Amino acid sequence: MALIKKPVTGMKDILPAEMQLRDYCISVIKKTYGEFGFTSIETPCVESLANLNSKQGGENEKLIFKVMKRGEKLNLAEAKEENDLTDSGLRYDLTVPLVRFYANHANELPAPFKALQMGNVWRADRPQKGRYRQFMQCDIDILGEPSNLAEIELILATTTTLGRLGFKDFKIRINERRILKAMAAYSGFPEEEYDNVFITLDKMDKIGIDGVAEELEKQGFAKDSIDKYLDLFRAAEGKNGLDGLNTIAQMLGDFLAPEVRDSLDEIINSVDATKSAQFEMVFDPTLVRGMSYYTGTIFEVAMPQYGGSCGGGGRYDKMVGKFLGQDTPACGFSIGFERIIMIMMDEGFKIPGAGDKIAFLIEKGRKGTRLSEISAEAQKERAAGKQVLVVRMAKNKNFQKQQLTEQGYEDIRDFYEKPLD
Amino acid sequence: MALIKKPVTGMKDILPAEMQLRDYCISVIKKTYGEFGFTSIETPCVESLANLNSKQGGENEKLIFKVMKRGEKLNLAEAKEENDLTDSGLRYDLTVPLVRFYANHANELPAPFKALQMGNVWRADRPQKGRYRQFMQCDIDILGEPSNLAEIELILATTTTLGRLGFKDFKIRINERRILKAMAAYSGFPEEEYDNVFITLDKMDKIGIDGVAEELEKQGFAKDSIDKYLDLFRAAEGKNGLDGLNTIAQMLGDFLAPEVRDSLDEIINSVDATKSAQFEMVFDPTLVRGMSYYTGTIFEVAMPQYGGSCGGGGRYDKMVGKFLGQDTPACGFSIGFERIIMIMMDEGFKIPGAGDKIAFLIEKGRKGTRLSEISAEAQKERAAGKQVLVVRMAKNKNFQKQQLTEQGYEDIRDFYEKPLD
Repeated sequence: MALIKKPVTGMKDILPAEMQLRDYCISVIKKTYGEFGFTSIETPCVESLANLNSKQGGENEKLIFKVMKRGEKLNLAEAKEENDLTDSGLRYDLTVPLVRFYANHANELPAPFKALQMGNVWRADRPQKGRYRQFMQCDIDILGEPSNLAEIELILATTTTLGRLGFKDFKIRINERRILKAMAAYSGFPEEEYDNVFITLDKMDKIGIDGVAEELEKQGFAKDSIDKYLDLFRAAEGKNGLDGLNTIAQMLGDFLAPEVRDSLDEIINSVDATKSAQFEMVFDPTLVRGMSYYTGTIFEVAMPQYGGSCGGGGRYDKMVGKFLGQDTPACGFSIGFERIIMIMMDEGFKIPGAGDKIAFLIEKGRKGTRLSEISAEAQKERAAGKQVLVVRMAKNKNFQKQQLTEQGYEDIRDFYEKPLD
Repeated sequence: MALIKKPVTGMKDILPAEMQLRDYCISVIKKTYGEFGFTSIETPCVESLANLNSKQGGENEKLIFKVMKRGEKLNLAEAKEENDLTDSGLRYDLTVPLVRFYANHANELPAPFKALQMGNVWRADRPQKGRYRQFMQCDIDILGEPSNLAEIELILATTTTLGRLGFKDFKIRINERRILKAMAAYSGFPEEEYDNVFITLDKMDKIGIDGVAEELEKQGFAKDSIDKYLDLFRAAEGKNGLDGLNTIAQMLGDFLAPEVRDSLDEIINSVDATKSAQFEMVFDPTLVRGMSYYTGTIFEVAMPQYGGSCGGGGRYDKMVGKFLGQDTPACGFSIGFERIIMIMMDEGFKIPGAGDKIAFLIEKGRKGTRLSEISAEAQKERAAGKQVLVVRMAKNKNFQKQQLTEQGYEDIRDFYEKPLD
């Protein structure tokens, strides 16, 4: 077979310049989340198909890269269906594996358990610009904390991290699945249609309130319901801070349990009072977030200047129960790692505190220094914390020096190497 | 389908305590290799089967986890052979992907190119204690450097890293494929049998010189050749430093090009003169290293107190040519990352400089502090570099405090939370 230079379709090689930025971001993220008491864990990249296909992954379940059974387990001649050939696949997110991990190790873990995961996931998406079939996800989750303390800590940790990476003037949009439901109930939509209503609502950003009205009409919902529904959004629109939430809560009356409003109020207040990054908490009743596993608060990082979301999360109190047989409150926040890297690359982000870089350029010569002495000199500089590249001089010395300068080696030293006697 | 709590066969979950050590080691490794001018790169975990099966992977090619084709490309009904179902797989090492990467990007990379890779690889080995089907590899490679400067830098970088991780009194065993070949030629073995001779020689550690003699006899080699061959090892045995090398070189005479001896001499001398860790360079004519792609120097980290090798590498000048059509000198060193972690865990390694950890324990109470004020207090401590865990009090307060102490939270502060008005 001929050898292939390109990566497999839809996946990419990461070159040194991007890798340096990624490593920097990873270290900031790990350090910051560590300060908030999150501890790193890791699960295998390969998971049982039984788990991956457990309906927790939504549309992603259609995008699984399946791993073939091996050896005796693989009998191609007798294989009739896919199950005969595969029973595992590459994970498409870090949430399903986390929940399995928690179910497997609950006895060994502190309660509540604050997990940080950074790892690759795979989705067989149609390849497109800036979107790859292997990409890194960065999730924090708190398992076993029923109160809104989880939400507050997740939002503070994530925004502090974003702030340290140089992001500012972004927004955290926040909403509650129970408010979404109360609004649909108040408007008189049939309960089995809520999810369809939310799918349309989710397009508000793109098609506006009239577009949403039109689409809901097309779907055959009652004019009354649609009017009542959209009046809620109209009443809240343009209101700052908690005013929108209070307006809607008042209109919903008994459809909304007061503790839902109070809890959201407390999250927004606590974060606003103690945040260390420059951003705004925004109650946004149009925020839906697609995954059906969310049961309470949902939130998203909005960076309008970059056209879209750079992360999100929410509460999913029912998912652990599916593995463990016993519900455990859970809440998570995922940073859009690849998106953040893309923005930072585009903006020419300069990594702070990159150390001194010295290049030793060695030429052969009669007189001069023994290689071991040059090496000793390099070791001395490294011991002093410098980054030292020792290379032999190329044929085109000027081009080599130019290349080295581009790589950040401003201190280039020439050596002549004395051959062995 | 029922959900499965365990990881897939042969792979493992990594719990916080191990993860913390892994993260620490990764940061030391990246920092140290960075000081030696190595830059990180990354390739996808999935590679074309054409590349994985290119005979560069030796026995590992039998252990590939294959990834199924997707969508239209997968036609189960018409599939007659494995090729109809799969054309990619999970990488089993980082060397084949590196060489593909280099062939793909040679124009964009500095010359010589010094690469650091840390990433997972997968092998469908029979599961056994301490050996997993997914594990991390940590490789440094220098491409485009024909001289022994590459070997010197690789060995210095790796041993400095091991030293900073607390390892000492280990050995770097070093040999040369060309010395191995010269020894076989001098002894009169037929050239096509060299590899079989080396496979037997590789067992010297376990079966001793008499065992090797016996096995070579069984294979039908001439008594004369065997005697001549083993006399070389007997002559070098027990000789310190370069004496063994010189003895063998003298016996080999014209069978060994003088520059091979000189170059090995210079590597050993330069490393010994400039090393920063406590270890010994040992010329070891019995060192074989299995992979057939090695063309020159080979080396291995020996930690006898832990029963075996903790890494190794060598020069492979012919592999890039298979992708690029044009030979490029290449040399690499791989640390046995998982083995090192296992040793450090077993020895109870204490991570230096772990910061202050404070736990805020919140109880509900009439009088007390608002959650936003408690949160502000935590933020203040974090801004001062402390690690602060904010949790609600569990039902069993004493057990919770005990758990927190075990996690390293020695400063535990009680708060009473005032409810919202």
